[in-house]
Amino acid sequence: MQHKSLGEEPCPIARGLEHVGEWWSILILRDALDGRRRFDEFQRNLPIAPNMLTRRLSALVDAGLLERRRYNEHPARYEYVPTEAGIDFQPVIAAMFSWGRKHYGPNPLRSLFVYRATGAEAEPVVIDAVTRLPITALDFGFARNPDWDEVG
Amino acid sequence: MQHKSLGEEPCPIARGLEHVGEWWSILILRDALDGRRRFDEFQRNLPIAPNMLTRRLSALVDAGLLERRRYNEHPARYEYVPTEAGIDFQPVIAAMFSWGRKHYGPNPLRSLFVYRATGAEAEPVVIDAVTRLPITALDFGFARNPDWDEVG
Repeated sequence: MQHKSLGEEPCPIARGLEHVGEWWSILILRDALDGRRRFDEFQRNLPIAPNMLTRRLSALVDAGLLERRRYNEHPARYEYVPTEAGIDFQPVIAAMFSWGRKHYGPNPLRSLFVYRATGAEAEPVVIDAVTRLPITALDFGFARNPDWDEVG
Repeated sequence: MQHKSLGEEPCPIARGLEHVGEWWSILILRDALDGRRRFDEFQRNLPIAPNMLTRRLSALVDAGLLERRRYNEHPARYEYVPTEAGIDFQPVIAAMFSWGRKHYGPNPLRSLFVYRATGAEAEPVVIDAVTRLPITALDFGFARNPDWDEVG
């Protein structure tokens, strides 16, 4: 990346962005979580240049979000499978989907976000598991952690 | 941006990333939603070069996520206030916080994500408002919208 590293920032959002903070990375993860595995599959679905796709896939492997697996010996062929950290990104994808849909469309949608068991459309919403309230900027935000050591 | 535009992609995630799909944009939004308004305040909190901060703030204004307001006449001084679309990004921030924290730390956290009314730590989780189930990649995903017109 051409950026300053965010890997040592004290904010988990910044640290996470170190690994996915680029357009293509997030869209590649979206597609990997949607079942795509192979270079051609990613390329068919994304308006991305092959050399950029190669670079982004490698970065996601290095970041521990995709695992590279050989599925053919001769010639050597690889597929990319989400790791646990990659799988755990699905809720972020869902939250982005809801936000993007509300403000940027399109309408109608080409793909819906659904509950797989029934095929019914899901309505992703971010809540606080403690209070069960929906997360809004009015009601929720950041506060200094009293346990954090400034010098540390 | 040096990127191909994603603004006309059929996926709302891609369309949303067109506007925030860059490290700094997301961190600037995070800080704006945390109450920061002025250039100096953003700069103090972010390891970002001034010219880059200027560019990213302008891009967020153009994207309709921040509003530029004059708060002083002579000399002219501006502050940046989240719009409705910007405010609606807080749930995405919360989802990214939970994910980043789980996989990349740090521990302890410098800032906690809290319920403002009580100061108690919140636990952001993305659920499906229809089934009330937590969103996981196993249970939720994309499916073609039968109402979407391939030609349209």
